Amino acid sequence: MRKLPHLVHPRAVFALALAGLCAALLGCASPAPSLVEPGRGSGDLGLVIERESGSLAVIDTSARQVLGRIAGLGDLSHASVVYARDGARAYVFGRDGALTKVNLLSGQIEARIQQAGNSIGGAISQDGSLVVAQNYQPGGIKVFDARTLKPLADIPAVVDGKASRVVGLADLPGNRFIYSLFDAGQIWIADLSEPTQPLLTKFTNIGKQPYDALVTPDGRYYLAGLFGEDGLAKIDLWATPPKVERILPNYGKGEQPLPVFKMPHLRGWAVAGRHAWLPAIGRHEVLIVDTQTWQEVGRVPVAGQPVFVMARPDGRQVWVNFAVPDYDTVQVIDTQTRQIVKNLKPGKAVLHMEFTPRGHAVWISSRDDHRVSVIDTASFKTLAELPAKSPSGIFFSSRAARMGF
Amino acid sequence: MRKLPHLVHPRAVFALALAGLCAALLGCASPAPSLVEPGRGSGDLGLVIERESGSLAVIDTSARQVLGRIAGLGDLSHASVVYARDGARAYVFGRDGALTKVNLLSGQIEARIQQAGNSIGGAISQDGSLVVAQNYQPGGIKVFDARTLKPLADIPAVVDGKASRVVGLADLPGNRFIYSLFDAGQIWIADLSEPTQPLLTKFTNIGKQPYDALVTPDGRYYLAGLFGEDGLAKIDLWATPPKVERILPNYGKGEQPLPVFKMPHLRGWAVAGRHAWLPAIGRHEVLIVDTQTWQEVGRVPVAGQPVFVMARPDGRQVWVNFAVPDYDTVQVIDTQTRQIVKNLKPGKAVLHMEFTPRGHAVWISSRDDHRVSVIDTASFKTLAELPAKSPSGIFFSSRAARMGF
Repeated sequence: MRKLPHLVHPRAVFALALAGLCAALLGCASPAPSLVEPGRGSGDLGLVIERESGSLAVIDTSARQVLGRIAGLGDLSHASVVYARDGARAYVFGRDGALTKVNLLSGQIEARIQQAGNSIGGAISQDGSLVVAQNYQPGGIKVFDARTLKPLADIPAVVDGKASRVVGLADLPGNRFIYSLFDAGQIWIADLSEPTQPLLTKFTNIGKQPYDALVTPDGRYYLAGLFGEDGLAKIDLWATPPKVERILPNYGKGEQPLPVFKMPHLRGWAVAGRHAWLPAIGRHEVLIVDTQTWQEVGRVPVAGQPVFVMARPDGRQVWVNFAVPDYDTVQVIDTQTRQIVKNLKPGKAVLHMEFTPRGHAVWISSRDDHRVSVIDTASFKTLAELPAKSPSGIFFSSRAARMGF
Repeated sequence: MRKLPHLVHPRAVFALALAGLCAALLGCASPAPSLVEPGRGSGDLGLVIERESGSLAVIDTSARQVLGRIAGLGDLSHASVVYARDGARAYVFGRDGALTKVNLLSGQIEARIQQAGNSIGGAISQDGSLVVAQNYQPGGIKVFDARTLKPLADIPAVVDGKASRVVGLADLPGNRFIYSLFDAGQIWIADLSEPTQPLLTKFTNIGKQPYDALVTPDGRYYLAGLFGEDGLAKIDLWATPPKVERILPNYGKGEQPLPVFKMPHLRGWAVAGRHAWLPAIGRHEVLIVDTQTWQEVGRVPVAGQPVFVMARPDGRQVWVNFAVPDYDTVQVIDTQTRQIVKNLKPGKAVLHMEFTPRGHAVWISSRDDHRVSVIDTASFKTLAELPAKSPSGIFFSSRAARMGF
């Protein structure tokens, strides 16, 4: 199961050589392999998905370096990552249904299972004890012990005898998880206080074909986009009892749909102050929504069909990337003036962006230029360019401290 | 300079014994001392200030255990902590003017300097490269290299020939720092883009005797409480140019002041949704302020004079502790109903509270009962009680990812 990292840090090579010598001569205890020097924390590390080679680049966001690689992850197209509470362990959900637990400090695979035929991401419980995968094939969700990946519960999403694909999975307080059933048009909450005895709450008739969803950063609202009709399904999870409401009735493809080159990722939604910034579908616009009234309050024209619309952690800027043919472009919106303040061309096929937790820099993956660019969010200067093999998602360990990530 | 940890993890003892044997027999490289097993991340660690013994308890917020102690820190009354980007290194500002860099994974002191005669805390720059201390004696701030603690700049706070004590220091984007001059009644911003050549912006006549201050979680507003008069000084740091405004004219001791047993900590201010929750001064009340209008919109009667008023990370609850004689009590306010939903008596002399980053639990120090209680924020059950010597401040490594912390 364990794989040696593809590349290792020079210091780690030295340590390994010393350890090997020591072990050969006297049978001393061999120190654990490591990508980093002892005493280094995990708070400023991250992973970059390298989809073609099925590997992960382990990155240091302080030194702006690739520390090493973890290989053997399988099909990583559309892969996503959640972090254990310690920030050193991460769970990688592969499109091929594999779930892999890796360690960013050691560069090792700690556990790996084939849990489904086709998976579309996962989540980790508030207390860090449970990892949950959402599946297209066979549908439903599966629950695992976060330490060992031992299966604890299999919760099919069967409605009227038909298994539904699951999307939009997110953690809620109290080791609960919320998710959407694409085929059944429902939203379910699984309470895993007793992991082997899930309690389900089901919301029916929420709209046609929910295709993605998110929880707001405070965990209060769950919002699901609808592929089969316009509008969004919203649940106020703090209400007693929570119920589904429809908002933004004109949000969607519309009656005369434009060609949509790529459906936007809702999880990229930016909440900045009292406003949410979200990608229009098919249109070259970013929508501004008041999170107190859930009414649209403005639109910003942008360079193409937006995919990710992400707020810098302080909410003062919103960064946008685009579907083909504008996927070499990134635009920056000032949230005070609602104007575009910068156009960037960081590389071909920009797939993802991730901010350092205090917002100093943003890391951007350019798949077809095989690089990750690090850009200062104040000066817009390129601070570093790092080689990566067809990079897609970028996931920093600071996600461990956030709800809904 | 280096001190062995006071207590060490059993695994660390084993590793040290093995290393010692190995080194004695063959001169092998001795592994670095450690409180934790290799490959463990720093994301769920923290420090508890043990003021009487001048030590720090290193805690594991997942296992809810004390991993070990770091001793030899000097006078830790009113001590505070900020974290390096990696979350493993922390900077401890002692009241006696000492600045100590410790490592939570190794349990070691990595650097220590005596930088002032009387210090009242510090901050770390957005990019993690600079640590700044705010001083009562000799006043002003001092800037240090975060890696080595080498002094880089000494910025006295002299107005009309008189050195002022500095309070309310906070980091701002772009390696800038903002702070208040208690004696001079001014607020200064130091731009440390070139650390050895600070650029100062000064706001004068901000009000009498600013005694503490904070930045809001988005870094937009700086708010300074005034000891010498009622009201607060507010700066919108996103305005062009920023200027000082006075808000909440009745906030303070009032014309017929009540006895104030302990001035509240402003840094404990809770911002939950669009409202800030703040401790009244002298009165048995918590005030609710709208952060869009900066008007008071409500008051909640509480058990005593509030000291810390802190929001659970999701903003759904606000927890309050109190000055003498009510300092054995903690109250929990539901922010939706504005009602007190729980009274707790975790121990004698509750001095501080810290939430786990996703809000599952809160850690509370009870100085005179020499313990730290871990309480589930949903069920209010006590999950653990850990021994600590006169514990005061509790600081989790997840602060590394936050502005103004």
